Amino acid sequence: MSYFDAASAAPLHPVARQALLASVDEGWADPARLYREGRRARMLLDAAREAAAEAVGCRPDELVFTASGTRAVHSGIEGALAGRRRVGRHLIVSAVEHSSVLHSAEAFEAAGGTVTRVPVTRAGRAETETYATALRPDTALACLQSANHEVGTVQPVAEVAEACRAAGVPLLVDAAQSLGWGPVEGDWSLLTASAHKWGGPSGVGLLVVRKGVRFAPQGPLDERESGRAAGFQNIPAIVAAAASLRAVRAEAAQEAGRLRELTERIRTRVPELVPDVEVVGDPVRRLPGIVTFSCLYVDGETVLHELDRAGFSVSSGSSCTSSTLTPSHVLKAMGVLSEGNVRVSLPPGVEAGEIDRFLSVLPDVVAAVREKLGAPAPRTAVHEDALVVDALGKVCPIPVIELAKVIGDVPVGGTVRVLADDEAARLDIPAWCEMRGQQYVGEEPAERGSAYLVRRLS
Amino acid sequence: MSYFDAASAAPLHPVARQALLASVDEGWADPARLYREGRRARMLLDAAREAAAEAVGCRPDELVFTASGTRAVHSGIEGALAGRRRVGRHLIVSAVEHSSVLHSAEAFEAAGGTVTRVPVTRAGRAETETYATALRPDTALACLQSANHEVGTVQPVAEVAEACRAAGVPLLVDAAQSLGWGPVEGDWSLLTASAHKWGGPSGVGLLVVRKGVRFAPQGPLDERESGRAAGFQNIPAIVAAAASLRAVRAEAAQEAGRLRELTERIRTRVPELVPDVEVVGDPVRRLPGIVTFSCLYVDGETVLHELDRAGFSVSSGSSCTSSTLTPSHVLKAMGVLSEGNVRVSLPPGVEAGEIDRFLSVLPDVVAAVREKLGAPAPRTAVHEDALVVDALGKVCPIPVIELAKVIGDVPVGGTVRVLADDEAARLDIPAWCEMRGQQYVGEEPAERGSAYLVRRLS
Repeated sequence: MSYFDAASAAPLHPVARQALLASVDEGWADPARLYREGRRARMLLDAAREAAAEAVGCRPDELVFTASGTRAVHSGIEGALAGRRRVGRHLIVSAVEHSSVLHSAEAFEAAGGTVTRVPVTRAGRAETETYATALRPDTALACLQSANHEVGTVQPVAEVAEACRAAGVPLLVDAAQSLGWGPVEGDWSLLTASAHKWGGPSGVGLLVVRKGVRFAPQGPLDERESGRAAGFQNIPAIVAAAASLRAVRAEAAQEAGRLRELTERIRTRVPELVPDVEVVGDPVRRLPGIVTFSCLYVDGETVLHELDRAGFSVSSGSSCTSSTLTPSHVLKAMGVLSEGNVRVSLPPGVEAGEIDRFLSVLPDVVAAVREKLGAPAPRTAVHEDALVVDALGKVCPIPVIELAKVIGDVPVGGTVRVLADDEAARLDIPAWCEMRGQQYVGEEPAERGSAYLVRRLS
Repeated sequence: MSYFDAASAAPLHPVARQALLASVDEGWADPARLYREGRRARMLLDAAREAAAEAVGCRPDELVFTASGTRAVHSGIEGALAGRRRVGRHLIVSAVEHSSVLHSAEAFEAAGGTVTRVPVTRAGRAETETYATALRPDTALACLQSANHEVGTVQPVAEVAEACRAAGVPLLVDAAQSLGWGPVEGDWSLLTASAHKWGGPSGVGLLVVRKGVRFAPQGPLDERESGRAAGFQNIPAIVAAAASLRAVRAEAAQEAGRLRELTERIRTRVPELVPDVEVVGDPVRRLPGIVTFSCLYVDGETVLHELDRAGFSVSSGSSCTSSTLTPSHVLKAMGVLSEGNVRVSLPPGVEAGEIDRFLSVLPDVVAAVREKLGAPAPRTAVHEDALVVDALGKVCPIPVIELAKVIGDVPVGGTVRVLADDEAARLDIPAWCEMRGQQYVGEEPAERGSAYLVRRLS
C-alpha cells in the first residue's frame, strides 16, 4: 500500500503520535484555571505556542491555535477585512487559492465587498507584476498561498509581500502546503497553516497576525486564544502539532532533496511511459513532494479507482469524480487539461521502490481505462470533408475522445466542430489542442451546449 | 490530589483514551476521498455519528461534529437565527446560560437583534411560566440550558420546549453539562454539547438540528459536516468522543446515585462546619455532581489557592480571581452571595474518602483566610449613632467585611451606609443582608461609587 495523497492529509508523524499520547494525560484541563491541572495545561500550551512561533518565525503572542486550517483562513480573512473596513472593501486573492480562501472571498462579495482574482500562468504561478496591478487604494487585504496544493507551484510570496507593503496593504499567506518545509520568506502580515498537512494531528490550525496589523475578530466574543479562536483549546493535539512541526523541520532539507528526486522521476518518466499525458505545474519552482499530470481520454474517477485497486492512494482534480461535477478551479485557472487528472503527493519517508512500482503500474491502468472508453488509436487517414462531432449529453472525457477519433479524418487546415454540453469540455478541448499541436479556434453558442471549433494543423 | 472541577473539563475517560489511540492510526485520512484510507476514515466517522445520535436520541443526519461546544453554540444560534430571519429578530435566553450563549446573544444585539434575558429564581431556575411570557410573534429562537454549569440547577427544558412548540418557536438546548447523564427530554429543536465535559477529548462538540427546523449556516461555504461545521474533521477525537459518551451513559445511573450522595454530604456538612456560608442552587432539581457554596469574608482566589495547596482543584464564580473582575453572571442573576464562591464538580469515579478529606480541610482553609483578611468575630456591642463605612477603593470581600464589623455597633432599627466602588459589592451586600437576617434598604449614588444602605433588624 502506497499513500500518495499527503497534500490532503499526511499520516501522523511518529513524534506527533508520541506527543499526543503523552499530553492526553497531562493537557486535558482548562488552561485558564489556577489549580495545578490547569497550570500544567497552560505550561504545555505556552511551550507549544513558543515552538510553533519559532518554526513560523514570529512572536508567540502573534500566533493563535485554531481548530483547523480552514478556520484559520476564515477567521484570518474576516478579521483582517473587518480591521481595515475604513480603508475599503476590496480583497485580492489569486485564482488558484485553496477553497477556504475562495469561499471566504465569496462570502465577502455576498456581504457587499469587491474581489479581484489574480490570474496565473499556465504553470500555475501568480506573477508579481500581475498581482501588483490588482492593488488599489481601497484594498483592505491581499491573499496569496505560499505554494499551490494541487500542482505544487511555489508562489513569489516575498516579492508580492514587498509590493503589498509598498501599497500599505497587508498580505495573508496561506502556508498550508509549505510550512513543514520551512518558514515563509518575506514581509507578510498574516499567515495560516494546518497541522495535519505536516504530519500533525487533525484539529489544529495556526493563525499568525503580525503586531501592528489591524485585526478585528468577528463572531461572538470568546476570551481564549487572544479572542481570535473561540472554543476550548485542544491542548494534546496542539502539543503534538508543535512537536511534529519541529520534527519535520529537522528532517526537511534532507527529505526535500529525496522527494524532489522522486517527483522528478515521475515528471520525466510518465510522459515517456504513457502517451497523451500533460504534466502540469511549474517544473522548477515547486514543492518537493507534489507532481500532477493529466491523461487524455480517461476519466479521473476510474483511474483513481484502478490505482486504488493496485495499491496507490492518489487524488484528482478532474470533474469526473464522485465528489465534484466541475473540474478543479486550479486546473481551470491554469488553462491546462483536467481530464484524467492525477495528483501524486508524497509523504515524507516514502521509498523509491514505491515510485518505481507506481511507474510500472500506471501505463497499464491508463491503457485499460482508455480501452474501456474506446479511446482512439493513432490514425493517419486523411479525408476531405469538414466534420461535426455530436457529443451532446456526453461527459468528460467522451467529447475529447470523439474529437481525437475524427481529427485524422479532417484535412490539414480543415475544421472540426465539437458539440458538447459538459462543463469540462470548455477546458479540455483547448487543452487537448495545445497538447496535440492543433489550433483551438474558439467557442460558439449552439442550440444545445456549445460548439468548439478546432483546426487541424498537422 | 483530588480534581473537583469536572464541570470545566473532565479527565479523559479510559474508553476515550483507548478509542483515541486506536483511531489515531486509522482515522487520519480525508473521509471525502475515495481510496482505502479515506473510506476507512469515512467508516469511522459514520459509526461515531450513529453512536452519538443514538445517545442524543436523534437521526444521524441531524447531528454534526463541531470543533468545540462553544463552536456548536455559536454556529447553532447563528444558523437558527438566520434561518428564521423573516419571522423576526428576537432571541430569548435565560440569564444563567453559558457565556458562549450570552456572547452569541450580544453579537446578535450588536447586529440589530433584540434579546430577552429570562430571569431566574434564587435557586437559579428559569421557571416555565416566566420563560413563556418572553415568547413573542417575532421570536426567531429560544435558548435554554439543560442544567446550569455553575450551580447544577436543572432547568425545565421539556416544559419550556412545549411552550415554545405551541408558539412555533424553535428551542435550542445547551446540553453541555447534562448529556453524559442522559438524553435531553422533551420536544426541543436544536441541541449542543461538548465532549470534554463527559470525559471525551477536547476538540469535539455536537450540533443537532432536527429535521424541519429552518437553519441557514453562516460564514464561508464549506462542504464538510453538511455545511454546518467548517474544517477538516478530527476523526480520532470524534471516535473517542462517541465511544466515551456511550461508556459514561452505561455507568450513568449508578454513578449519578453515588455522586448525588457525595454532593448531598457537602451540601449538608459545609454549613455545619463553616460559619457564614450560603449553599446555592436548587437542592433537589440538580445535577448529581455539582455543589456550589459561597463563604462570607473571604476572597475566591485565596480560597482556591489554599485549596489547591491542600490538594483540591475547584473553581470559583467570585470576582476575586485573576481571570475575572466581575462576579459570575450566574450568581448575579440568582441574587446570591458571590464572595468566597467555591464550585465543587465531581468527576465520575471520585471516592468518598476524597470528599471526607475535603470536608476536613475546608473549615481551616476558610478560617485562615478570614483571619488574614481581618474578618469580624461575632460581636454583641450596641451603640447609638448611625454609621458610615468607607470602603471606597477596596475590593471584594473587604466592603462586606467592614460592614460586618460595624453592624454590631448599629442599634436595632438603625442604618449603616457602606460606600463602595467595587462592582461585587452591589451583589454581595444584599446577599449578606439576606444571609444575616438584616434588611437591605437600597443603593444610592454617591460622590464616588455607591452608597449601600443596610438596616439592622436583629
